[in-house]
Amino acid sequence: MPSHPDSNLHSNATGLAAKTVEAHSSEQPLKLYSGWFCPFVQRVWLILEEKKIPYQYIEVNPYNKPESLLKLNPRGLVPTLQYDKKPLYESNVICEFLEDAYPDHRTKLLPSDPYEKARCRIWCDFCTSRIIPAFHRFLQCQERGEGLDEKRREFLETLKEFAKEMDGEGPYFLGRESCLVDFVVGPWAVRLWAFDHFKEGGLGIPEEGKGGEDEMVWARWNKWATAMGDRKSVQETTSDREHYLPIYQRYANDTAQSELAKATRSGRGVP
Amino acid sequence: MPSHPDSNLHSNATGLAAKTVEAHSSEQPLKLYSGWFCPFVQRVWLILEEKKIPYQYIEVNPYNKPESLLKLNPRGLVPTLQYDKKPLYESNVICEFLEDAYPDHRTKLLPSDPYEKARCRIWCDFCTSRIIPAFHRFLQCQERGEGLDEKRREFLETLKEFAKEMDGEGPYFLGRESCLVDFVVGPWAVRLWAFDHFKEGGLGIPEEGKGGEDEMVWARWNKWATAMGDRKSVQETTSDREHYLPIYQRYANDTAQSELAKATRSGRGVP
Repeated sequence: MPSHPDSNLHSNATGLAAKTVEAHSSEQPLKLYSGWFCPFVQRVWLILEEKKIPYQYIEVNPYNKPESLLKLNPRGLVPTLQYDKKPLYESNVICEFLEDAYPDHRTKLLPSDPYEKARCRIWCDFCTSRIIPAFHRFLQCQERGEGLDEKRREFLETLKEFAKEMDGEGPYFLGRESCLVDFVVGPWAVRLWAFDHFKEGGLGIPEEGKGGEDEMVWARWNKWATAMGDRKSVQETTSDREHYLPIYQRYANDTAQSELAKATRSGRGVP
Repeated sequence: MPSHPDSNLHSNATGLAAKTVEAHSSEQPLKLYSGWFCPFVQRVWLILEEKKIPYQYIEVNPYNKPESLLKLNPRGLVPTLQYDKKPLYESNVICEFLEDAYPDHRTKLLPSDPYEKARCRIWCDFCTSRIIPAFHRFLQCQERGEGLDEKRREFLETLKEFAKEMDGEGPYFLGRESCLVDFVVGPWAVRLWAFDHFKEGGLGIPEEGKGGEDEMVWARWNKWATAMGDRKSVQETTSDREHYLPIYQRYANDTAQSELAKATRSGRGVP
């Protein structure tokens, strides 16, 4: 690939994700335009893998977007799905589409009951409207001390609020079987290492036995986050850690130029 | 109702909306906790009316929320739907729920085809992630001249982008029949008078014949907006204009205390 401004942005998936990319490189009518590192892409990628839907993986260099993508979706964002030569975008919309278009393909991602389905959608929405913006305000925060602590607290509050809604036993959101909510929130759960790596004071989730009144909530969170990290589809869409570091370094320095980074800086929601 | 800080916040629906409230005042298992003036509520209210679903309307005083609502949904936001004694919230989730739970009740709100359904969801999402934040940044803008003009331009761009996606003939988004997208975006289309009323330079949509290269786009927008304003369900969930004025005055002065107003000020997305 041509060089680009972030010259240390690795251009392709690595590790286990690279094997998945290789297994999905041949021509297929359904195409996933992807950034290997992008958590929004990972939502869709997880659904494709979980439901074992045939697809062609196409890596997108954010600084040199392929013509095929720009013709399909002039905004050129990832994830974009090509279905029947037509574009779909917005990760949550794509996930729901895959469930509608491949309803019984290997696994059902949403309950059939309208109320329970709606409840799942509430928590998918919570991720996009509460967890992700708080994640980024915390990660991109350039203050120290109390200013940073406040952002940490706000972010951890969103995780606790989410954990309290989970089935008591788990490990997944609805219980023993995974559902859409797990795959919508999961990509951020498996990026929490960035806080321990880059932010003074780290992530801040209390150790086992030191959670006080939140002990049970954090125990439940940890059970879920561990299950997500162990999930085969998650591991097989995750690249080697070292290649994520420069990307998250830029978020931690607040110099990242992604739409989401800029939105966080200028005080806008998830674009 | 007890008095409250915004003493000129009218406490109940008026005009045609008041008649609708009266017609839905008796006890029903399905309950809509509402603010008569709230556009997010109006999305849900429109769906209930369009699909002729039996419901009980319950007005919520934002400064004195009923215990019944707080028990159901501690956040006490409107719209909250009570279904089978359980809460649902997030207006888009409630709308999709009503379609799932009452699929053939009078009218179908989303196409059956998975791709076309997903495309509708993309444009519902566009409303919440692009139109509404731009509406509020424009309305709450305290700058004058170029600063205000920029917010106006950004907002009008979102309307044009939406209009370009509409069926060519219309009048509705998908054509001759209305769908979910119309009711998700509609409540903001019928509040655009606030810009002419409160902002220097007004809304700024060019008059017929003066649209230049955007003539067709604005003609299509106007056709849609007019159809929405004329829609029976819209008229019957709209109160008398005079009672909206103090509410929108506070947005225009940027003194409003709603979650959305605060989010706009502090640079966050739609809460």
